[in-house]
Amino acid sequence: MANEVVVLDKWASMYGMRVRIALAEKGISYESKEEDFNNKSDLLLQSNPIHKKIPVLIHNGKSISESGIIVQYIDEVWNHKNPLFSSDPYERAQARFWVDYIDKKVFATWMKVWLSKGEEYEEAKKELISIFKTLEETLGDKSFYGVETPKLVAWGKRCIEKESVSKSLPDENKIYEYVVAGKKALGYDD
Amino acid sequence: MANEVVVLDKWASMYGMRVRIALAEKGISYESKEEDFNNKSDLLLQSNPIHKKIPVLIHNGKSISESGIIVQYIDEVWNHKNPLFSSDPYERAQARFWVDYIDKKVFATWMKVWLSKGEEYEEAKKELISIFKTLEETLGDKSFYGVETPKLVAWGKRCIEKESVSKSLPDENKIYEYVVAGKKALGYDD
Repeated sequence: MANEVVVLDKWASMYGMRVRIALAEKGISYESKEEDFNNKSDLLLQSNPIHKKIPVLIHNGKSISESGIIVQYIDEVWNHKNPLFSSDPYERAQARFWVDYIDKKVFATWMKVWLSKGEEYEEAKKELISIFKTLEETLGDKSFYGVETPKLVAWGKRCIEKESVSKSLPDENKIYEYVVAGKKALGYDD
Repeated sequence: MANEVVVLDKWASMYGMRVRIALAEKGISYESKEEDFNNKSDLLLQSNPIHKKIPVLIHNGKSISESGIIVQYIDEVWNHKNPLFSSDPYERAQARFWVDYIDKKVFATWMKVWLSKGEEYEEAKKELISIFKTLEETLGDKSFYGVETPKLVAWGKRCIEKESVSKSLPDENKIYEYVVAGKKALGYDD
């Protein structure tokens, strides 16, 4: 069967980036459809009726939602190259644990840092730093999912050197402009 | 290698129940250690230092946390009988989606219903009913993960008829007493 792959995405989304990187690792061609959060497409509403959120992977007409779940699906369907998860159940459980940790902690705290001021901002910043410290500790003896680099920043640099990653991420200046414009639109123009 | 399995648990926990049911389905003997939330054991703090929460599965000295992740680990390690997940990647993605949905929605809303009054209580109740309706719709053509039963209650009844489920759940009167005592302890004695 031919593989028809469509991704409903938003260029600035960190969850969308996960899916883009996974597909790039597997060398899968796909059609990307950019969503407008203020005017969601019928395709998005139909393919993710529960959360109505991107990213959604549509593979031969079947939709899969939630980036962590999509990445596992991609790894299981295109298992011929570049495994994204270890073949060991314990290692796989650990990878799932950290995906879940990032989902629960990073984005929400990042939003708090972004949208708060004064004491609340200082608290949120402290929390975000403590989350990064936790992540840094877990990277103590790993590079991607394996050996070596002890620091989060170093790990980030190694990731960005991979073509599958660098080509899947938007320009950082564009992200900055997007965040500033978003804050303004929400009435947080400091 | 001998399988040494320990579960750090709390009898009333719905997340603990997931792990108990999965182990019962696989016919795995294990030692259950009951945790006291007001005085967490050193073993819990060491084996789940990030969240410090039950359930934790300790398998031959290695710890796995988060009930949804534990259930997948159990299914992957003891894959000789009673598969808990389909072998089809799409079906597996759907199962993961609903585990995630329940994690995100049911418990938090249940707590809101439990701890609120007046208008807030009515709102939370409406939300919980809408969550159950969503779950009911997804059970339209499934029994456990398969065919048949169109209703959540009917599905619940079918589940409870399974020995692996009924023997893994606490007595409902004990749960009721526990909830009432918990509300009182928190100052919600109506």
